[in-house]
Amino acid sequence: MDLTRSPLARPFPEMSPIAGVKLRVARAGYKSWDRADLTYAELAEGTTVAGVFTRNVCCSTEVEMGREQVRLGRARALVVNAGNSNAFTGYRGREAVEAIMAQVAHHLDCLPSDVFVSSTGVIGVPLPKAKAEAGVAAVFEAPEVPYEEAALTIGTTDTFAKGATATAMLGETKVTLNAIVKGSGMIAPDMATMLGYVFTDASVDPAFLQSCLAAANRATFNCITVDSDTSTSDTVLAFATGKAGNAPLTSFDDPGADAFAAALHDVCRQLAHLVVRDGEGASKFIAVTVTGAESDDSARRVGLAVANSPLVKTAIAGGDANWGRVVMAVGKAGEPANRDTLSIAFGGHWTARDGLPVKGYDEAPVAAHLAGEEIDVLVDLGIGEGRATVWTCDLTHGYIAINADYRS
Amino acid sequence: MDLTRSPLARPFPEMSPIAGVKLRVARAGYKSWDRADLTYAELAEGTTVAGVFTRNVCCSTEVEMGREQVRLGRARALVVNAGNSNAFTGYRGREAVEAIMAQVAHHLDCLPSDVFVSSTGVIGVPLPKAKAEAGVAAVFEAPEVPYEEAALTIGTTDTFAKGATATAMLGETKVTLNAIVKGSGMIAPDMATMLGYVFTDASVDPAFLQSCLAAANRATFNCITVDSDTSTSDTVLAFATGKAGNAPLTSFDDPGADAFAAALHDVCRQLAHLVVRDGEGASKFIAVTVTGAESDDSARRVGLAVANSPLVKTAIAGGDANWGRVVMAVGKAGEPANRDTLSIAFGGHWTARDGLPVKGYDEAPVAAHLAGEEIDVLVDLGIGEGRATVWTCDLTHGYIAINADYRS
Repeated sequence: MDLTRSPLARPFPEMSPIAGVKLRVARAGYKSWDRADLTYAELAEGTTVAGVFTRNVCCSTEVEMGREQVRLGRARALVVNAGNSNAFTGYRGREAVEAIMAQVAHHLDCLPSDVFVSSTGVIGVPLPKAKAEAGVAAVFEAPEVPYEEAALTIGTTDTFAKGATATAMLGETKVTLNAIVKGSGMIAPDMATMLGYVFTDASVDPAFLQSCLAAANRATFNCITVDSDTSTSDTVLAFATGKAGNAPLTSFDDPGADAFAAALHDVCRQLAHLVVRDGEGASKFIAVTVTGAESDDSARRVGLAVANSPLVKTAIAGGDANWGRVVMAVGKAGEPANRDTLSIAFGGHWTARDGLPVKGYDEAPVAAHLAGEEIDVLVDLGIGEGRATVWTCDLTHGYIAINADYRS
Repeated sequence: MDLTRSPLARPFPEMSPIAGVKLRVARAGYKSWDRADLTYAELAEGTTVAGVFTRNVCCSTEVEMGREQVRLGRARALVVNAGNSNAFTGYRGREAVEAIMAQVAHHLDCLPSDVFVSSTGVIGVPLPKAKAEAGVAAVFEAPEVPYEEAALTIGTTDTFAKGATATAMLGETKVTLNAIVKGSGMIAPDMATMLGYVFTDASVDPAFLQSCLAAANRATFNCITVDSDTSTSDTVLAFATGKAGNAPLTSFDDPGADAFAAALHDVCRQLAHLVVRDGEGASKFIAVTVTGAESDDSARRVGLAVANSPLVKTAIAGGDANWGRVVMAVGKAGEPANRDTLSIAFGGHWTARDGLPVKGYDEAPVAAHLAGEEIDVLVDLGIGEGRATVWTCDLTHGYIAINADYRS
């Protein structure tokens, strides 16, 4: 498969190290490829954790176990396997995950439940336990790598390494958040074949970390879609080593808690946008903003109906200001809407206002906007105060080429 | 646009005339094309009518008016405009429809509400009233045409004429049903940019006709999907001229009522399949059967989640037995399911049983099945008795080519 770099790619940002986080990679050989495919993060004692997971009912063992582990709030290590999602593999898949957890727990002298495992790749093939164990043994001996190399190693069909970084001041203490993500297809609401990891040196109570992460997730990862398909393995984990030395954040009453939550939201939004930018076959980055909806949730659902419509996505791929397809997608969303108050704009140029094509509509500036790489679609429903923005990419021949061939 | 005939096309069936139905076509010139684009059916006095319509809240004037007219139960004429859907065109669009109704009513000496109008094509451009009026005037003078020519004339991006015919014995009286349909993209549950018309010489009470049509629609047109998009103009109308001379059917207690309902269901199913066979870019006809669901409705929703998944549709396009994508689609449907009782088969060959890949799974017969044009996917959820079959086509480069370029 020819995975050329997405035209919407962004360079990997400069990242300073995070105290209490050591990254290493190794080659387990999950597929017949010549690259590292096992990523290991060793986390300092006292690290807290929060996580959000796919709602796909056919989720993987890793997701089932991760959900339970997050409730305990503690983490000492993360292992990410690339090339095999280990989903739909029953007890044989579970054995491999438990073996990895035991092996790492023995090495770090911690509990198996402190070891988080994620896997991404083909569904239905049990993760080969022997390869995993050999890979883990090798990774313990491997040198530390920078975040960019870890971001590359967790990837599968990704065409570029995706990372984001931010800082926040908690009183006098500066904390740093470094985050990496993989995912380029099967990206939909309730996340995607998307694995995202945020590392910070802040000291954060796990319950508060969980509430910050859940809020950020709702407005970022759950507002992106590439093809409406939802993976069985989606996971976003946030690890806080506490090495910055701030007084632990436990609620929004603590100094700097707002700044920390904002920084977490910021890195999640950056990662979410990067996933869309690596959408399979993507040639344009599309922001769909819905205003005037009955509620924010309703606005988000209308936005996703537009963002998921193959007809809207192909029109934009073709640079066609076909706002009629947006009307259709709004109408099929099943949300409160009124044809006669509906207005639509591309790149700030109204094409329809209050249920009618704009008088003397000039397609030229709209066509110029659609010829670019960053497309803004505004849908005003004109019935309320709800609003939301969702992000997607266009649907192109590249998507078909990648997905009609990809597997095993 | 190169609209070559779909590889899944079927020949138009032989059709005998229906007493009380006269078909004519003319060129209104709604687009700059050299073809007839206005279809006219004159219906005998006493014709009854039933109809089902899109649930898209941004529906066209024609749909709004048709819904009201169907309640009156009477019809004398049908006018179908191809090339302009007249959707999202406000009062100017409504004026053109009312002008057509008045013109035909005057010609036939009937009520405007006896004249049904459908329009299909681009959204957001008011139907040009002068062209419509000239077209209608011309069509009154045009010679009668066979059903196949009417089927061609109502088409837009269709690549072949689509029709179905059936007969039923009502006691001693044989009745005939001839049906035509257009539609090839934007085809989804709750119908599609799909216009379907059934003509019969049976005498049928409009309320009974409506209940038969609604039942047939649920199991046929509402079980097909091409791209999950739902049009603003979808309409299926059934016209019964009563010229066969049977005692009017009013309920299932009447002799032959079952046979009539079965024949109506049969033509609707044939038409629905033909629409999928003309799905934009389709190269394979896919039947997804879901068994063992909590209910029939739940089975249908799971089936549609599979049939609408771009990843499943591209895998089948590529002849790839990627049943993991079926697992994913089942899981995202939001319906009751259990990963550990889920079984999946292609063409009768199980790939996974009870939540595990089949032991010693042989991909060869599955690959051979997927290399064909008619694909069967079976999903057994293993939790109940509900079942449903839905139909779709694969997602290919052809879909992108058609939809990234089509418009104006």
